[in-house]
Amino acid sequence: MFILSSPSGAGKTTISRMLLDRDGEINLSVSATTRPKRPGEVDGKHYHFVDQAEFDRMVEADEFYEWATVFGHCYGTPKAQIRSGLKEGRDYLFDIDWQGTQQLYQKDQQDVVRVFILPPSLDELQRRLTGRGTDSPEVIQARMERARAEISHWDGYDYVVVNDEVEACYDQVLAILHAERMKRARQTGLIGFVRGLMKD
Amino acid sequence: MFILSSPSGAGKTTISRMLLDRDGEINLSVSATTRPKRPGEVDGKHYHFVDQAEFDRMVEADEFYEWATVFGHCYGTPKAQIRSGLKEGRDYLFDIDWQGTQQLYQKDQQDVVRVFILPPSLDELQRRLTGRGTDSPEVIQARMERARAEISHWDGYDYVVVNDEVEACYDQVLAILHAERMKRARQTGLIGFVRGLMKD
Repeated sequence: MFILSSPSGAGKTTISRMLLDRDGEINLSVSATTRPKRPGEVDGKHYHFVDQAEFDRMVEADEFYEWATVFGHCYGTPKAQIRSGLKEGRDYLFDIDWQGTQQLYQKDQQDVVRVFILPPSLDELQRRLTGRGTDSPEVIQARMERARAEISHWDGYDYVVVNDEVEACYDQVLAILHAERMKRARQTGLIGFVRGLMKD
Repeated sequence: MFILSSPSGAGKTTISRMLLDRDGEINLSVSATTRPKRPGEVDGKHYHFVDQAEFDRMVEADEFYEWATVFGHCYGTPKAQIRSGLKEGRDYLFDIDWQGTQQLYQKDQQDVVRVFILPPSLDELQRRLTGRGTDSPEVIQARMERARAEISHWDGYDYVVVNDEVEACYDQVLAILHAERMKRARQTGLIGFVRGLMKD
Protein backbone atom coordinates (compact mmCIF):
# COMPACT_ATOMS: atom_id res chain seq x y z
CA MET A 1 0.00 0.00 0.00
CA PHE A 2 1.78 3.04 -1.33
CA ILE A 3 0.52 6.22 0.32
CA LEU A 4 1.04 9.69 -1.13
CA SER A 5 0.09 12.64 1.07
CA SER A 6 0.67 16.34 0.65
CA PRO A 7 -1.03 19.62 1.31
CA SER A 8 -3.43 20.63 -1.45
CA GLY A 9 -1.44 22.19 -4.30
CA ALA A 10 1.86 20.41 -3.54
CA GLY A 11 1.38 17.90 -6.35
CA LYS A 12 -0.01 14.72 -4.81
CA THR A 13 -2.82 14.31 -7.36
CA THR A 14 -0.58 15.05 -10.37
CA ILE A 15 2.08 12.57 -9.19
CA SER A 16 -0.62 9.95 -8.44
CA ARG A 17 -2.01 10.26 -11.97
CA MET A 18 1.48 9.97 -13.46
CA LEU A 19 2.12 6.79 -11.46
CA LEU A 20 -1.20 5.25 -12.51
CA ASP A 21 -0.60 6.18 -16.16
CA ARG A 22 3.02 5.09 -16.41
CA ASP A 23 3.53 2.26 -13.92
CA GLY A 24 1.76 -0.85 -15.15
CA GLU A 25 1.75 -2.58 -11.79
CA ILE A 26 0.10 -0.12 -9.45
CA ASN A 27 -3.65 0.01 -8.86
CA LEU A 28 -6.03 2.50 -7.35
CA SER A 29 -8.28 1.14 -4.64
CA VAL A 30 -11.98 1.73 -5.23
CA SER A 31 -13.45 3.61 -2.26
CA ALA A 32 -16.94 3.22 -0.86
CA THR A 33 -18.91 6.45 -0.53
CA THR A 34 -22.32 7.73 0.52
CA ARG A 35 -22.04 10.65 -1.91
CA PRO A 36 -24.57 10.53 -4.80
CA LYS A 37 -23.31 9.21 -8.12
CA ARG A 38 -22.36 11.96 -10.59
CA PRO A 39 -23.05 11.72 -14.33
CA GLY A 40 -20.54 9.41 -16.00
CA GLU A 41 -19.50 7.66 -12.79
CA VAL A 42 -19.69 3.87 -12.74
CA ASP A 43 -20.52 1.91 -9.58
CA GLY A 44 -17.64 -0.44 -8.76
CA LYS A 45 -15.20 1.47 -10.98
CA HIS A 46 -15.06 5.05 -9.69
CA TYR A 47 -16.67 4.27 -6.33
CA HIS A 48 -18.75 1.68 -4.58
CA PHE A 49 -21.90 3.75 -4.02
CA VAL A 50 -23.58 2.72 -0.77
CA ASP A 51 -26.27 4.26 1.43
CA GLN A 52 -25.59 5.58 4.92
CA ALA A 53 -26.97 2.46 6.64
CA GLU A 54 -24.64 0.19 4.65
CA PHE A 55 -21.66 2.51 5.26
CA ASP A 56 -22.40 2.53 9.02
CA ARG A 57 -22.65 -1.26 9.00
CA MET A 58 -19.23 -1.50 7.28
CA VAL A 59 -17.68 0.85 9.86
CA GLU A 60 -19.20 -1.23 12.69
CA ALA A 61 -17.95 -4.48 11.11
CA ASP A 62 -14.40 -2.99 10.80
CA GLU A 63 -14.49 -3.47 7.03
CA PHE A 64 -12.54 -0.26 6.29
CA TYR A 65 -8.82 0.41 6.43
CA GLU A 66 -9.63 4.08 6.88
CA TRP A 67 -12.68 6.26 6.49
CA ALA A 68 -13.54 9.93 6.80
CA THR A 69 -16.40 12.37 6.43
CA VAL A 70 -15.81 15.20 3.95
CA PHE A 71 -18.46 17.88 3.38
CA GLY A 72 -21.15 15.65 4.89
CA HIS A 73 -20.41 12.54 2.81
CA CYS A 74 -18.58 9.45 3.98
CA TYR A 75 -15.63 7.86 2.15
CA GLY A 76 -13.88 4.64 3.10
CA THR A 77 -11.30 2.14 1.83
CA PRO A 78 -12.71 -1.41 2.00
CA LYS A 79 -10.21 -3.98 3.26
CA ALA A 80 -11.50 -7.02 1.35
CA GLN A 81 -10.41 -6.16 -2.23
CA ILE A 82 -7.02 -4.83 -1.11
CA ARG A 83 -6.20 -7.78 1.14
CA SER A 84 -6.80 -10.26 -1.68
CA GLY A 85 -4.90 -8.03 -4.15
CA LEU A 86 -1.90 -7.72 -1.81
CA LYS A 87 -1.80 -11.51 -1.43
CA GLU A 88 -1.50 -11.80 -5.19
CA GLY A 89 1.40 -9.32 -5.13
CA ARG A 90 -0.53 -6.28 -6.35
CA ASP A 91 0.39 -2.75 -5.26
CA TYR A 92 -2.19 -0.15 -4.34
CA LEU A 93 -1.88 3.61 -4.45
CA PHE A 94 -3.55 5.80 -1.83
CA ASP A 95 -3.99 9.51 -2.30
CA ILE A 96 -5.03 10.33 1.29
CA ASP A 97 -4.32 12.83 4.08
CA TRP A 98 -2.35 12.33 7.29
CA GLN A 99 -5.36 11.08 9.23
CA GLY A 100 -6.16 8.38 6.68
CA THR A 101 -2.46 7.49 6.65
CA GLN A 102 -2.45 7.07 10.41
CA GLN A 103 -5.54 4.84 10.32
CA LEU A 104 -4.06 2.69 7.55
CA TYR A 105 -0.71 2.40 9.30
CA GLN A 106 -2.31 1.34 12.56
CA LYS A 107 -4.12 -1.50 10.77
CA ASP A 108 -1.25 -2.83 8.69
CA GLN A 109 2.27 -1.53 9.40
CA GLN A 110 4.08 -4.15 7.37
CA ASP A 111 2.44 -3.45 4.01
CA VAL A 112 2.37 0.34 4.19
CA VAL A 113 4.86 2.76 2.58
CA ARG A 114 4.21 6.40 3.46
CA VAL A 115 5.46 9.22 1.22
CA PHE A 116 4.95 12.90 1.98
CA ILE A 117 5.30 15.53 -0.74
CA LEU A 118 6.34 19.00 0.41
CA PRO A 119 6.02 22.22 -1.59
CA PRO A 120 9.31 24.12 -2.10
CA SER A 121 7.83 27.05 -0.14
CA LEU A 122 4.45 28.29 1.12
CA ASP A 123 4.71 31.26 -1.27
CA GLU A 124 5.01 28.83 -4.15
CA LEU A 125 2.07 26.82 -2.80
CA GLN A 126 -0.04 29.98 -2.69
CA ARG A 127 1.01 30.84 -6.25
CA ARG A 128 -0.04 27.38 -7.44
CA LEU A 129 -3.40 27.53 -5.67
CA THR A 130 -4.03 31.05 -7.02
CA GLY A 131 -2.86 30.02 -10.50
CA ARG A 132 -5.62 27.43 -10.77
CA GLY A 133 -8.02 30.36 -10.98
CA THR A 134 -10.85 28.25 -9.60
CA ASP A 135 -11.00 29.39 -5.99
CA SER A 136 -11.88 32.64 -4.24
CA PRO A 137 -9.27 34.33 -2.01
CA GLU A 138 -11.21 33.08 1.03
CA VAL A 139 -11.07 29.46 -0.17
CA ILE A 140 -7.35 29.84 -0.94
CA GLN A 141 -6.80 31.24 2.55
CA ALA A 142 -8.63 28.24 4.02
CA ARG A 143 -6.54 25.87 1.88
CA MET A 144 -3.33 27.57 3.06
CA GLU A 145 -4.42 27.06 6.67
CA ARG A 146 -5.15 23.38 5.96
CA ALA A 147 -1.77 23.09 4.21
CA ARG A 148 0.05 24.28 7.33
CA ALA A 149 -1.88 21.77 9.44
CA GLU A 150 -1.11 18.95 6.96
CA ILE A 151 2.61 19.85 6.79
CA SER A 152 2.86 19.74 10.58
CA HIS A 153 2.35 15.95 10.31
CA TRP A 154 5.27 15.40 7.90
CA ASP A 155 7.14 13.41 10.54
CA GLY A 156 4.63 10.55 10.40
CA TYR A 157 5.97 9.47 7.01
CA ASP A 158 8.74 7.11 5.87
CA TYR A 159 9.88 9.26 2.96
CA VAL A 160 9.77 12.98 2.24
CA VAL A 161 10.12 14.47 -1.25
CA VAL A 162 10.21 18.18 -2.07
CA ASN A 163 8.25 18.99 -5.24
CA ASP A 164 10.35 21.69 -6.89
CA GLU A 165 9.71 20.40 -10.39
CA VAL A 166 7.06 17.81 -11.19
CA GLU A 167 9.10 15.41 -13.40
CA ALA A 168 12.00 15.33 -10.92
CA CYS A 169 9.55 14.76 -8.06
CA TYR A 170 7.89 11.95 -10.04
CA ASP A 171 11.28 10.29 -10.63
CA GLN A 172 11.98 10.40 -6.92
CA VAL A 173 8.60 8.92 -6.01
CA LEU A 174 9.11 6.21 -8.65
CA ALA A 175 12.55 5.36 -7.20
CA ILE A 176 10.88 4.87 -3.81
CA LEU A 177 8.21 2.59 -5.33
CA HIS A 178 10.83 0.54 -7.22
CA ALA A 179 13.14 0.28 -4.21
CA GLU A 180 10.31 -0.81 -1.92
CA ARG A 181 9.47 -3.59 -4.38
CA MET A 182 13.03 -4.87 -3.98
CA LYS A 183 12.75 -5.12 -0.19
CA ARG A 184 13.50 -8.70 0.65
CA ALA A 185 10.47 -9.06 2.87
CA ARG A 186 8.14 -7.95 0.03
CA GLN A 187 9.50 -10.34 -2.58
CA THR A 188 7.33 -13.31 -1.75
CA GLY A 189 8.62 -15.34 -4.70
CA LEU A 190 12.23 -15.01 -3.55
CA ILE A 191 12.31 -17.93 -1.13
CA GLY A 192 11.38 -20.31 -3.94
CA PHE A 193 13.88 -18.65 -6.29
CA VAL A 194 16.78 -19.01 -3.84
CA ARG A 195 15.76 -22.59 -3.07
CA GLY A 196 15.86 -23.26 -6.82
CA LEU A 197 19.29 -21.56 -7.07
CA MET A 198 20.77 -23.77 -4.35
CA LYS A 199 19.46 -26.91 -6.06
CA ASP A 200 21.09 -26.02 -9.39
CA MET B 1 26.58 3.10 4.69
CA PHE B 2 25.44 1.37 1.54
CA ILE B 3 26.47 -2.28 1.51
CA LEU B 4 26.61 -4.40 -1.63
CA SER B 5 27.17 -8.13 -1.19
CA SER B 6 27.00 -10.99 -3.65
CA PRO B 7 28.73 -14.24 -4.43
CA SER B 8 31.84 -13.78 -6.57
CA GLY B 9 30.77 -13.41 -10.20
CA ALA B 10 27.26 -12.09 -9.48
CA GLY B 11 28.24 -8.51 -10.29
CA LYS B 12 28.97 -6.76 -7.00
CA THR B 13 32.28 -5.27 -8.12
CA THR B 14 30.94 -4.12 -11.52
CA ILE B 15 27.90 -2.46 -9.93
CA SER B 16 30.11 -0.86 -7.25
CA ARG B 17 32.37 0.66 -9.91
CA MET B 18 29.37 1.97 -11.85
CA LEU B 19 28.00 3.62 -8.71
CA LEU B 20 31.35 5.23 -7.88
CA ASP B 21 31.78 6.43 -11.48
CA ARG B 22 28.27 7.77 -12.03
CA ASP B 23 26.94 8.86 -8.64
CA GLY B 24 28.71 12.01 -7.53
CA GLU B 25 27.71 11.69 -3.90
CA ILE B 26 28.90 8.24 -2.90
CA ASN B 27 32.38 7.51 -1.53
CA LEU B 28 34.47 4.44 -1.01
CA SER B 29 35.84 3.97 2.46
CA VAL B 30 39.61 3.49 2.64
CA SER B 31 40.41 0.22 4.41
CA ALA B 32 43.38 -0.46 6.64
CA THR B 33 45.43 -3.52 5.70
CA THR B 34 48.55 -5.41 6.74
CA ARG B 35 49.11 -6.57 3.15
CA PRO B 36 52.28 -5.15 1.53
CA LYS B 37 51.83 -2.16 -0.78
CA ARG B 38 51.75 -3.10 -4.48
CA PRO B 39 53.37 -0.98 -7.19
CA GLY B 40 51.22 2.06 -7.95
CA GLU B 41 49.24 1.92 -4.71
CA VAL B 42 49.14 5.06 -2.61
CA ASP B 43 48.98 4.97 1.18
CA GLY B 44 45.82 6.73 2.36
CA LYS B 45 44.21 6.50 -1.06
CA HIS B 46 43.98 2.81 -1.94
CA TYR B 47 44.60 1.57 1.58
CA HIS B 48 45.97 2.67 4.90
CA PHE B 49 49.02 0.39 5.07
CA VAL B 50 49.73 -0.59 8.67
CA ASP B 51 51.86 -3.27 10.33
CA GLN B 52 50.39 -6.19 12.27
CA ALA B 53 51.06 -4.57 15.67
CA GLU B 54 49.15 -1.41 14.66
CA PHE B 55 46.30 -3.47 13.18
CA ASP B 56 46.04 -5.54 16.39
CA ARG B 57 46.01 -2.34 18.45
CA MET B 58 43.14 -0.96 16.30
CA VAL B 59 41.15 -4.19 16.76
CA GLU B 60 41.73 -4.05 20.52
CA ALA B 61 40.70 -0.39 20.64
CA ASP B 62 37.47 -1.19 18.71
CA GLU B 63 38.50 1.20 15.94
CA PHE B 64 37.05 -0.97 13.14
CA TYR B 65 33.48 -1.32 11.94
CA GLU B 66 34.42 -4.71 10.57
CA TRP B 67 37.62 -6.59 9.89
CA ALA B 68 38.64 -9.92 8.40
CA THR B 69 41.67 -12.01 7.53
CA VAL B 70 41.95 -13.04 3.88
CA PHE B 71 44.86 -15.20 2.67
CA GLY B 72 46.90 -14.33 5.75
CA HIS B 73 46.47 -10.53 5.54
CA CYS B 74 44.17 -8.41 7.66
CA TYR B 75 41.69 -5.88 6.27
CA GLY B 76 39.51 -3.53 8.31
CA THR B 77 37.17 -0.55 7.94
CA PRO B 78 38.22 2.26 10.31
CA LYS B 79 35.30 3.95 12.06
CA ALA B 80 36.80 7.43 12.44
CA GLN B 81 36.72 8.70 8.83
CA ILE B 82 33.27 7.23 8.15
CA ARG B 83 31.68 8.59 11.32
CA SER B 84 32.81 12.12 10.52
CA GLY B 85 31.76 11.71 6.86
CA LEU B 86 28.30 10.44 7.81
CA LYS B 87 27.85 13.42 10.11
CA GLU B 88 28.49 15.70 7.15
CA GLY B 89 25.87 13.80 5.15
CA ARG B 90 28.25 11.75 3.03
CA ASP B 91 27.35 8.25 1.81
CA TYR B 92 29.81 5.36 1.83
CA LEU B 93 29.81 2.28 -0.34
CA PHE B 94 30.91 -1.09 1.05
CA ASP B 95 31.75 -4.00 -1.18
CA ILE B 96 31.87 -6.68 1.55
CA ASP B 97 30.66 -10.22 2.30
CA TRP B 98 27.91 -11.36 4.64
CA GLN B 99 30.22 -11.56 7.65
CA GLY B 100 31.43 -7.98 7.22
CA THR B 101 27.81 -6.94 6.72
CA GLN B 102 26.79 -8.57 9.96
CA GLN B 103 29.62 -6.88 11.87
CA LEU B 104 28.75 -3.48 10.40
CA TYR B 105 25.05 -3.90 11.10
CA GLN B 106 25.68 -4.86 14.71
CA LYS B 107 27.69 -1.67 15.24
CA ASP B 108 25.35 0.78 13.53
CA GLN B 109 21.88 -0.43 12.51
CA GLN B 110 20.46 2.98 11.81
CA ASP B 111 22.93 4.08 9.14
CA VAL B 112 23.25 0.77 7.29
CA VAL B 113 21.45 -0.22 4.06
CA ARG B 114 22.11 -3.82 3.01
CA VAL B 115 21.71 -4.91 -0.61
CA PHE B 116 22.28 -8.46 -1.82
CA ILE B 117 22.84 -9.21 -5.52
CA LEU B 118 21.81 -12.67 -6.70
CA PRO B 119 22.89 -14.34 -9.94
CA PRO B 120 20.00 -15.44 -12.21
CA SER B 121 21.15 -19.06 -11.79
CA LEU B 122 24.19 -21.03 -10.58
CA ASP B 123 24.77 -22.25 -14.15
CA GLU B 124 25.03 -18.64 -15.28
CA LEU B 125 27.36 -17.86 -12.35
CA GLN B 126 29.61 -20.75 -13.39
CA ARG B 127 29.58 -19.49 -17.00
CA ARG B 128 30.62 -16.00 -15.84
CA LEU B 129 33.43 -17.35 -13.64
CA THR B 130 34.65 -19.64 -16.43
CA GLY B 131 34.34 -16.83 -19.01
CA ARG B 132 36.86 -14.71 -17.13
CA GLY B 133 39.46 -17.25 -18.23
CA THR B 134 41.68 -16.41 -15.26
CA ASP B 135 40.98 -19.32 -12.92
CA SER B 136 41.65 -23.06 -13.01
CA PRO B 137 38.68 -25.49 -12.78
CA GLU B 138 39.65 -26.20 -9.15
CA VAL B 139 39.56 -22.49 -8.23
CA ILE B 140 36.20 -22.12 -10.02
CA GLN B 141 34.86 -25.11 -8.10
CA ALA B 142 36.03 -23.50 -4.85
CA ARG B 143 34.38 -20.20 -5.86
CA MET B 144 31.13 -22.03 -6.62
CA GLU B 145 31.20 -23.59 -3.15
CA ARG B 146 31.81 -20.17 -1.59
CA ALA B 147 28.99 -18.75 -3.72
CA ARG B 148 26.51 -21.28 -2.31
CA ALA B 149 27.64 -20.43 1.23
CA GLU B 150 27.32 -16.67 0.53
CA ILE B 151 23.86 -17.06 -1.05
CA SER B 152 22.63 -18.96 2.00
CA HIS B 153 22.91 -15.65 3.92
CA TRP B 154 20.66 -13.68 1.53
CA ASP B 155 18.02 -13.28 4.25
CA GLY B 156 20.27 -10.99 6.30
CA TYR B 157 19.75 -8.16 3.78
CA ASP B 158 17.20 -5.37 3.42
CA TYR B 159 17.01 -5.54 -0.37
CA VAL B 160 17.58 -8.31 -2.89
CA VAL B 161 18.25 -7.68 -6.60
CA VAL B 162 18.66 -10.37 -9.26
CA ASN B 163 21.42 -9.51 -11.74
CA ASP B 164 20.01 -10.76 -15.05
CA GLU B 165 21.42 -7.85 -17.01
CA VAL B 166 23.98 -5.44 -15.60
CA GLU B 167 22.41 -2.09 -16.64
CA ALA B 168 18.98 -3.14 -15.33
CA CYS B 169 20.57 -4.35 -12.10
CA TYR B 170 22.46 -1.05 -11.79
CA ASP B 171 19.21 0.91 -12.25
CA GLN B 172 17.60 -1.11 -9.47
CA VAL B 173 20.52 -0.59 -7.10
CA LEU B 174 20.50 3.14 -7.93
CA ALA B 175 16.74 3.33 -7.19
CA ILE B 176 17.46 1.82 -3.76
CA LEU B 177 20.24 4.35 -3.10
CA HIS B 178 18.05 7.29 -4.21
CA ALA B 179 15.02 6.08 -2.23
CA GLU B 180 17.09 5.59 0.91
CA ARG B 181 18.32 9.17 0.60
CA MET B 182 14.69 10.30 0.71
CA LYS B 183 13.99 8.48 3.96
CA ARG B 184 12.77 11.13 6.34
CA ALA B 185 15.09 10.01 9.11
CA ARG B 186 18.14 10.40 6.83
CA GLN B 187 17.34 13.92 5.65
CA THR B 188 18.99 15.80 8.44
CA GLY B 189 18.34 19.19 6.82
CA LEU B 190 14.60 18.57 6.64
CA ILE B 191 13.70 19.76 10.13
CA GLY B 192 15.13 23.18 9.36
CA PHE B 193 13.44 23.22 5.95
CA VAL B 194 9.99 22.44 7.39
CA ARG B 195 10.52 24.98 10.16
CA GLY B 196 11.33 27.53 7.45
CA LEU B 197 8.22 26.50 5.49
CA MET B 198 5.94 27.05 8.46
CA LYS B 199 7.41 30.52 9.10
CA ASP B 200 6.77 31.62 5.48
